[in-house]
Amino acid sequence: MKAQNAKRNLTMVMDFYEMTMSSGYFKSANRSDRAVFDVFYRNNPDGGGYAIFAGLEQIVEYIENLHFDSEDVEYFRSLGIFDEDFLQYLLEFKFTGDMYAFPEGTIMYPEEPFITVVAPLIDAQLIETALLLQVNHQSLVATKASRIVRAAEGRAVSDFGARRAHNMDSAVYGARASYIGGVNSTATVLAGQMFDIPISGTMAHSWVMYFKDEYTAFKTYAENYPDNTVLLLDTYNVLKSGVPNAIRVAKEVLEPMGKRLKGVRLDSGDLAYLSKAVRRMLDEAGLVDCVIVASNSLDEYTIQSLLRQDARIDSFGVGERMITAKSEPVFGAVYKIAAVFEGGEEVPKIKISENVEKITNPGLKSVYRIYDGEGKSIADLIASRDEEVDLTTPYRYIDPTKPWKKRSFEGCVKKCLQVPIFKDGKLVYTMPALTDIREYVKDQFKNEIWEEELRFEQPHVHYLDMSPAYYEMKMNLLDSLG
Amino acid sequence: MKAQNAKRNLTMVMDFYEMTMSSGYFKSANRSDRAVFDVFYRNNPDGGGYAIFAGLEQIVEYIENLHFDSEDVEYFRSLGIFDEDFLQYLLEFKFTGDMYAFPEGTIMYPEEPFITVVAPLIDAQLIETALLLQVNHQSLVATKASRIVRAAEGRAVSDFGARRAHNMDSAVYGARASYIGGVNSTATVLAGQMFDIPISGTMAHSWVMYFKDEYTAFKTYAENYPDNTVLLLDTYNVLKSGVPNAIRVAKEVLEPMGKRLKGVRLDSGDLAYLSKAVRRMLDEAGLVDCVIVASNSLDEYTIQSLLRQDARIDSFGVGERMITAKSEPVFGAVYKIAAVFEGGEEVPKIKISENVEKITNPGLKSVYRIYDGEGKSIADLIASRDEEVDLTTPYRYIDPTKPWKKRSFEGCVKKCLQVPIFKDGKLVYTMPALTDIREYVKDQFKNEIWEEELRFEQPHVHYLDMSPAYYEMKMNLLDSLG
Repeated sequence: MKAQNAKRNLTMVMDFYEMTMSSGYFKSANRSDRAVFDVFYRNNPDGGGYAIFAGLEQIVEYIENLHFDSEDVEYFRSLGIFDEDFLQYLLEFKFTGDMYAFPEGTIMYPEEPFITVVAPLIDAQLIETALLLQVNHQSLVATKASRIVRAAEGRAVSDFGARRAHNMDSAVYGARASYIGGVNSTATVLAGQMFDIPISGTMAHSWVMYFKDEYTAFKTYAENYPDNTVLLLDTYNVLKSGVPNAIRVAKEVLEPMGKRLKGVRLDSGDLAYLSKAVRRMLDEAGLVDCVIVASNSLDEYTIQSLLRQDARIDSFGVGERMITAKSEPVFGAVYKIAAVFEGGEEVPKIKISENVEKITNPGLKSVYRIYDGEGKSIADLIASRDEEVDLTTPYRYIDPTKPWKKRSFEGCVKKCLQVPIFKDGKLVYTMPALTDIREYVKDQFKNEIWEEELRFEQPHVHYLDMSPAYYEMKMNLLDSLG
Repeated sequence: MKAQNAKRNLTMVMDFYEMTMSSGYFKSANRSDRAVFDVFYRNNPDGGGYAIFAGLEQIVEYIENLHFDSEDVEYFRSLGIFDEDFLQYLLEFKFTGDMYAFPEGTIMYPEEPFITVVAPLIDAQLIETALLLQVNHQSLVATKASRIVRAAEGRAVSDFGARRAHNMDSAVYGARASYIGGVNSTATVLAGQMFDIPISGTMAHSWVMYFKDEYTAFKTYAENYPDNTVLLLDTYNVLKSGVPNAIRVAKEVLEPMGKRLKGVRLDSGDLAYLSKAVRRMLDEAGLVDCVIVASNSLDEYTIQSLLRQDARIDSFGVGERMITAKSEPVFGAVYKIAAVFEGGEEVPKIKISENVEKITNPGLKSVYRIYDGEGKSIADLIASRDEEVDLTTPYRYIDPTKPWKKRSFEGCVKKCLQVPIFKDGKLVYTMPALTDIREYVKDQFKNEIWEEELRFEQPHVHYLDMSPAYYEMKMNLLDSLG
């Protein structure tokens, strides 16, 4: 495995306001004051019922590498607005704060902090943009991939998206995220090499067009890869030339070697009609074990539609609509200050804003996932970090959308979702293997999450409840600013 | 300036089929055969009338760096499907082909090859994915940015998108592309450092929330940056607290220092209503020179709508909808084989496919832009590479969508759009400065392109004509494959 990011200093991937504010904090405030920043998002992509948290491993790499090179400081000096003592401070800077996060792969819901940073103001401020973009990108693609994988109903899904990705990192980390979301393999070689993801790929139309005719192209490929021959059918005419030539290669080239034609691929045309016709022709030729792979602008909706039409497709190659999350390419996680410690005393902070949905949840808090007796996740609960939440007896909670209702958890257990990642700048967390993250996602879908949250249309909205004490603190704070 | 990509080996950013095909070519074909691959796209983004070609400089860096490290070859060896002589060949591999391309920043149209690679088969095949994703990403964002800049009608536009970009490269090269498209500045520091793009940024809501009240936050900022004070108004209440506190800082902090309040920023709420109310309040306080900056999910459509409502906004901060090109996040450039040289003889190749729009233009060709007597670009013309196109007398051409019409260019001049970039693997092109690319884009919009191609709704479709000889060659080839 190859860790390209480990060699890159991404410290300068920041919004410039992080630097103007940091310089301001450096000069004007008690810069050892610790602040609490929460990372959360407001709406599930595609009107879905959940999102998958991805990108934690790259955030850890980024923070461990965080430092300003002398050329970085020279660049800031050239802008002519920063004092020399601040520039000197930057040369020594490293992250000294705490970070808590959900384990990577955790199913998450709007408004709950899946990462919390508790750090000196400057440390907390400087990591905002890089942290957000990593989380936003990978969570976006992991979530999209999980929807596509679900639509495929157990059929294989492969990531074919690199050429339409938003530059190099997007192809590579998008492949990683889609693997977390449940995809079986990627065509992107560097993602295979860096993350040990199975890679797949056979031929392009150019292969078929290079040779003097389609049969020769197919034959040559089969001779080169007799154990893994997947032939692309649609360069000239799928049913009149592609399939007959594929069958001829199966009979004349592969079978004499004791090999079978592994598969054929459709990349254009009416995939429902063509896949059924191709299946019939293959079956009639005795190639019942030859799989049909389909690609061409697929996503969860087209795959669902194809399967409703009884398309005979065994495996999907999914490109642009997964790697860019085309139907909704923005995952809007934000980074908001929730509290400041002044002389060790927590002062909760709230943003009111002009838009109601942009009001934040103040204070340092814990997020618990609440499970019923069958292990199903029935709600998440926010409480202050220092509050005890005891579910051994019925636990009265507040649903902030209907605070007048008297509701309790009974016979439930809780899991605290955030775990410590950094403590005083030191990594205190052991990163799980990528395959374990992928299994964790699968396991949650299978055992924990209500099916009603997984459907594409009008999914059940997961409850985000509050402890009575936390709810009261928030209301009092709102009241005081009102 | 800092050239991060120059230090990165991106050779492994490829689709795996490039490797399976290359190994096949290595063993089965005359691998010194040169092939011709064209890069072109099929539809303008957002139903617009054009696209901007961007990303050439990064393609050049990528190709100049192209090589397999020993760990790369080791990875391929571990897959157990490649022969040792091919793996040894990879260790020695470098790009030895020719490449032609439009100069970066050229306005381009569907179906015309803006890059052509003429190279030994393996060389041409191995660069497919990395070349496409670079072109697709940067052309997408440059095109989107040009639309947003046009909607702003001369007002400043700044890129605020990093946090919603699809990972690190997307933020940095997206900033570069948006600058090519006409944006004035970026908030992304690394993009400023790498490409000398002006950077901008002031404060986040966290700055305002950190201090004991909004006035103290504004005052502290003004004391730190008296020459560049832009205050964020919407943390609590724009009209009741944000503007009064900003005016107080202008009067009590800045004016005694002989400074003026440079600007205020709105980031939520009804930007049309609020900007007008804020303008009135600022003007009444004598702050007529204080600019109003607006941000919050803006794009060309929201900006157009705001200006139609007479919003008093002087400068737009544009984030997620530009950096992800949210309304259409896929730029679909493809890489298609157009010819093969067999013993020095060009054999044109065509892909027929199941979808009519996926039929390709065969052969090695030139693309000319045709200008009328006033220097306006009236059409593009495809001809075979070795064909002479003489416009000094009336020139009969074919419009392939209406081939029966008898049409001629009269009093026109032509420009050959592709220029040589690599010759036998050697760079033969001097890369222009980024600011020159940006000026070139501006100049084309101002002087060359019909206004009718620039509108958002139903733009004029630029003509892509063919020389009679080229058209006949294509028709004969189609006929022969019938």
